Amino acid sequence: MARARLRDLGILIGRYPPGEHNAITDVPGVLVGHKTLIYDEPFVVRTGVTVVIPRDGNIAKDYAFAGWDALNGFGEMTGLLMMEEFGHLTSPVALTNTSQVGLVRDALAHFGAERHGGAFKIAVVAETYDGWLSDSDALPLTQRDVYDAIEAASSGPVQEGNVGGGTGMICHEFKGGIGTASRIVEGPGGPYVIGALVQANHGDRYTLRVDGVPVGREIGIECVPSPWSAPPKAGSIIVILATDAPLVAVQCKRLARRAAIGMARAGGLALDSSGDIFLAFATGNHYPHDARELVDLKHFPFRRFDPLIEASAEAVEEAILNALTAAETMVGQKARMAHALPLDQLQAIMARYRPG
Amino acid sequence: MARARLRDLGILIGRYPPGEHNAITDVPGVLVGHKTLIYDEPFVVRTGVTVVIPRDGNIAKDYAFAGWDALNGFGEMTGLLMMEEFGHLTSPVALTNTSQVGLVRDALAHFGAERHGGAFKIAVVAETYDGWLSDSDALPLTQRDVYDAIEAASSGPVQEGNVGGGTGMICHEFKGGIGTASRIVEGPGGPYVIGALVQANHGDRYTLRVDGVPVGREIGIECVPSPWSAPPKAGSIIVILATDAPLVAVQCKRLARRAAIGMARAGGLALDSSGDIFLAFATGNHYPHDARELVDLKHFPFRRFDPLIEASAEAVEEAILNALTAAETMVGQKARMAHALPLDQLQAIMARYRPG
Amino acid sequence: MARARLRDLGILIGRYPPGEHNAITDVPGVLVGHKTLIYDEPFVVRTGVTVVIPRDGNIAKDYAFAGWDALNGFGEMTGLLMMEEFGHLTSPVALTNTSQVGLVRDALAHFGAERHGGAFKIAVVAETYDGWLSDSDALPLTQRDVYDAIEAASSGPVQEGNVGGGTGMICHEFKGGIGTASRIVEGPGGPYVIGALVQANHGDRYTLRVDGVPVGREIGIECVPSPWSAPPKAGSIIVILATDAPLVAVQCKRLARRAAIGMARAGGLALDSSGDIFLAFATGNHYPHDARELVDLKHFPFRRFDPLIEASAEAVEEAILNALTAAETMVGQKARMAHALPLDQLQAIMARYRPG
Amino acid sequence: MARARLRDLGILIGRYPPGEHNAITDVPGVLVGHKTLIYDEPFVVRTGVTVVIPRDGNIAKDYAFAGWDALNGFGEMTGLLMMEEFGHLTSPVALTNTSQVGLVRDALAHFGAERHGGAFKIAVVAETYDGWLSDSDALPLTQRDVYDAIEAASSGPVQEGNVGGGTGMICHEFKGGIGTASRIVEGPGGPYVIGALVQANHGDRYTLRVDGVPVGREIGIECVPSPWSAPPKAGSIIVILATDAPLVAVQCKRLARRAAIGMARAGGLALDSSGDIFLAFATGNHYPHDARELVDLKHFPFRRFDPLIEASAEAVEEAILNALTAAETMVGQKARMAHALPLDQLQAIMARYRPG
Repeated sequence: MARARLRDLGILIGRYPPGEHNAITDVPGVLVGHKTLIYDEPFVVRTGVTVVIPRDGNIAKDYAFAGWDALNGFGEMTGLLMMEEFGHLTSPVALTNTSQVGLVRDALAHFGAERHGGAFKIAVVAETYDGWLSDSDALPLTQRDVYDAIEAASSGPVQEGNVGGGTGMICHEFKGGIGTASRIVEGPGGPYVIGALVQANHGDRYTLRVDGVPVGREIGIECVPSPWSAPPKAGSIIVILATDAPLVAVQCKRLARRAAIGMARAGGLALDSSGDIFLAFATGNHYPHDARELVDLKHFPFRRFDPLIEASAEAVEEAILNALTAAETMVGQKARMAHALPLDQLQAIMARYRPG
Repeated sequence: MARARLRDLGILIGRYPPGEHNAITDVPGVLVGHKTLIYDEPFVVRTGVTVVIPRDGNIAKDYAFAGWDALNGFGEMTGLLMMEEFGHLTSPVALTNTSQVGLVRDALAHFGAERHGGAFKIAVVAETYDGWLSDSDALPLTQRDVYDAIEAASSGPVQEGNVGGGTGMICHEFKGGIGTASRIVEGPGGPYVIGALVQANHGDRYTLRVDGVPVGREIGIECVPSPWSAPPKAGSIIVILATDAPLVAVQCKRLARRAAIGMARAGGLALDSSGDIFLAFATGNHYPHDARELVDLKHFPFRRFDPLIEASAEAVEEAILNALTAAETMVGQKARMAHALPLDQLQAIMARYRPG
Repeated sequence: MARARLRDLGILIGRYPPGEHNAITDVPGVLVGHKTLIYDEPFVVRTGVTVVIPRDGNIAKDYAFAGWDALNGFGEMTGLLMMEEFGHLTSPVALTNTSQVGLVRDALAHFGAERHGGAFKIAVVAETYDGWLSDSDALPLTQRDVYDAIEAASSGPVQEGNVGGGTGMICHEFKGGIGTASRIVEGPGGPYVIGALVQANHGDRYTLRVDGVPVGREIGIECVPSPWSAPPKAGSIIVILATDAPLVAVQCKRLARRAAIGMARAGGLALDSSGDIFLAFATGNHYPHDARELVDLKHFPFRRFDPLIEASAEAVEEAILNALTAAETMVGQKARMAHALPLDQLQAIMARYRPG
Repeated sequence: MARARLRDLGILIGRYPPGEHNAITDVPGVLVGHKTLIYDEPFVVRTGVTVVIPRDGNIAKDYAFAGWDALNGFGEMTGLLMMEEFGHLTSPVALTNTSQVGLVRDALAHFGAERHGGAFKIAVVAETYDGWLSDSDALPLTQRDVYDAIEAASSGPVQEGNVGGGTGMICHEFKGGIGTASRIVEGPGGPYVIGALVQANHGDRYTLRVDGVPVGREIGIECVPSPWSAPPKAGSIIVILATDAPLVAVQCKRLARRAAIGMARAGGLALDSSGDIFLAFATGNHYPHDARELVDLKHFPFRRFDPLIEASAEAVEEAILNALTAAETMVGQKARMAHALPLDQLQAIMARYRPG
């Protein structure tokens, strides 16, 4: 059965409408690029890098506002201290594997040095672990791969599943990877877009829920053939939330924290060995990197903030599920096989659990 | 229809078994006491105070370990800085209304001064707002009420719903209040109990879910008669988690953070004006208040921590739902009426959404 | 010898000039009020409450921006979660003793309910412990005292030493209390004022430094007559920083963190049993409490932030020293005597350590 | 004039005695290794890497306890989330330049994969910026250099000044770099060592103080010859604190926070563009990396914690000053010259400011 997006299967999450592409790229100026490495020689490699680039690439000179949260900290995202201190996002955000988060970080910094006059010194790069499918000793990524992902970045529809940083990931004991979704909310000066992109590598099968339905428990562990003998139950998830609403830093942090809601509704628990790290940025305000005079901002009113909260939770929940419905079964190193979420079973279960 | 506990309605949350009373008091030594004030003259008062007392009241001399988190900070819990600095819980925990959190805090401190030689200087007291039903200018609570709640504290079954600090609360636009639940988990040196107690005053109706079923959406706003014209959608929730596992402080914080999972699964979003504050304490280790020599601890191994995480989420989810199924319809000031969650509708909806 | 302000003794801290009154009230619209309770019957009482009121009292409708930090958490400041979540200060700030921080908090909340239509629900009140000189079982403060402090608040010179919340405090094993200072800094749209007010109840004598000179070590413990047998070495310090610069919340937090620098330069160490809690607010931006449309802000540029950092450290350092030079020797309960810092010795030591 | 350690110049900081080598290596099992790169072709390179290795290299299997703080966040330290979540240090700590913090991080992770069966996945690496003297586009460090530093690590005296990660650093507008110091404190089960190692690249000249004496102000900017035209005033400082006391995680965090005290006493302000990041670890407790049973710990009593606090501040203060007195004048790229702190002037100024 061909892979699909959740919404195309007739399964709708929440009450806010999605944007045009139901993707983080619905936020104006947000670009996404992937570089995917899949090959078997000399090492079995199933990895890559995904970049999320705000402001059509002009983030080096025109900072966005940002905040983050970590529901469980067994993971890495560089650049967190600077985001906390200044409330700004000053670089693209890259997602990759654990072993080479440093390489990607330096590459992103070097890209900023070469192309943007020394920017991106404190670059934001996060990781989840793909060493079950991909040989993590291979260290296959190069600076060139990171540049490729940046240069490939575009607006419009976003590839999901086994691409970029999500290539070798496992989610709720199915094949995971990259997923995205978006929501439109009303607000003063709006409407605004809330977009989410996840690199989903977390969760056990039993707790997976789709719109509240216990899909993971229903499918069970036994339904899939070997060699799915000992897949990783608890990995990590990175969530990037973006909006064009004019938020200040503390408001971005609020959105980042709501990623936990979306993850929980899909069955995530933030297990012990998980790195559940959430970043939210807002492009509606502008901070010139070299500002020496007072900068004009707009402050979104808190009394109208609730739709942004709910839409963030919805977008994250759907982005995770999109990663699952998009990702295809993959065979990796040592003949390990990560099974895709079977869409026919998914729909059969949903039908049973939904009143006629 | 008589009120009930969720489990008695045949609705089970999660996969871990509850303790004997399915209550926070299943954690050995944890006592709960309520003082409830319900009267109409000279003010309409629907309020109270609930205390959770570790170590059979001996917490002044035998500190427990503790950690906390706030998913949304529009609320108050005193004593947080000290818990963060030392990782200890050194006093009972009290829950009450917003207007008098200070009075309860001083009363608890004074109780420590009188009965425990000066302890409880930095007491832990949290609040949610009951001013929709109760006249918050009445300031009805006195030091005596706090002492009464402490003196009434006991182990065994815990009263839920419209009692103690939960008396005047609203949850998912139904009558809310106090709820509790517990889980038993295996672990080294175990089994251990995870208990949760909530003062639930949060959420809107639309998002309420029971075991994933969209009960709130199904019931809808219109189903209940006036004068439920403009109930508060977004209040707050305080969660107290307790365990007898020998945890250190950072591990308690981890459990506290998982309250967000349980809350999210029941439909909570941590809306803008919500104070969602979570505290977890662990009694399995002992720290003598006057220690001047090295103190022996046990450190629960992280590699076996996952059951504690999942059980915490389950206990919180069920405790919130128990608050809803226990609380009775209440009429408060200005003839405002907070309707109880209709259990017959709940069961009918659950039946429709569950395969036969 | 009469008490004095440090600067009047010819001792200058730092390189930025002070404001007109060298006080937190140099920040336009900031008012300070004290209520001081000193009596011996039926209890020995040496306590009080100090309020710092932004915006000429209009803070209920016109929020300021704020941030906080705690260098050591053995203390209490209410309202911290809300400040963290929203980045706003929405109430006056009160300083008092440990036993009655709750009473003052409720009184402040009630004042907001009565006078400002329900504001100040989450009031900001901090404490340090004066139970060495004052009988902490007396619980002498009343709601009326808090109202008195608020109503007494004014701009202009600020009383220092044994007044308000500082009445019974000890600092570096000398008599401590309230101190204040200010600095003028240049900046875009400026100049701006940085004002500090401290309730100083911390530190041991040995480490006290005045402009780097080891004054405490030089004076020593023995120099003062009994009954100074066992004074508290380690108490707490509350620092309030205010500025009229148009800062956002994360920038206020930065200033709050710099209170540690000023405290350290004067010899503070944030000892184990100390509650070193720092709050900074900025009045240069305005957030209407009922905003439902986008609010215009100015964002102070980070590249010109350094003077605010240095001035904050200087103001805090001098405010602590002003508390010491202003406070007079006090006899409290059990005939305990807290000696004032001897100004003649101070000047003699400074002269010896300063090149001619 | 030959370089020296501060103490050898007769200048003593604080009241606690140093350990045998007055170095972080006085903590049993702590090793320090440097790899220094100084060459002019094809790029002008003044950089390196320094590693601090706990437990004689056995940290992969025998975790230490740890905590961190960032006084100002314009910088990077990887691994912070994991330290916060678990309270453990699980890898050596490396210090290097900004451009290659990623390379060093991956190298450290890879070293763990090769030598320790997959450990160090979340490695701890921090940076300060040496791009004023060293060509940061050169990217000169290789995985081999990191391995060299690890393999060179030893106990005993520690090289200071222009070595390892400190090679190209500037401190208080003098040549900075690596510095270290230690203190011995009494405690239950003790005595214990507190050791500090800094990579000092921060501060402006004016505020530099040595034992409270305004040495920077006295020397002034003009005293040194050109081309010291526009040196960086505000860089960053990384502080590593180590102790053999049996601390738990929250206690390590307390020590880390006290680095601010030591830094402030030496004149540091944590200026806007500074990354002031502090890490403290304690080796007195052991946590086996694969623990699946309860682990026995000792909990150091808080009531005897004050000496650890004061000693941490002292060690950090002296380590910074040791970096300054050890570092030699260096000429870097573009013929920029970073002048060493002139020891003769230092001593002359100290003599003038100290009573005879």
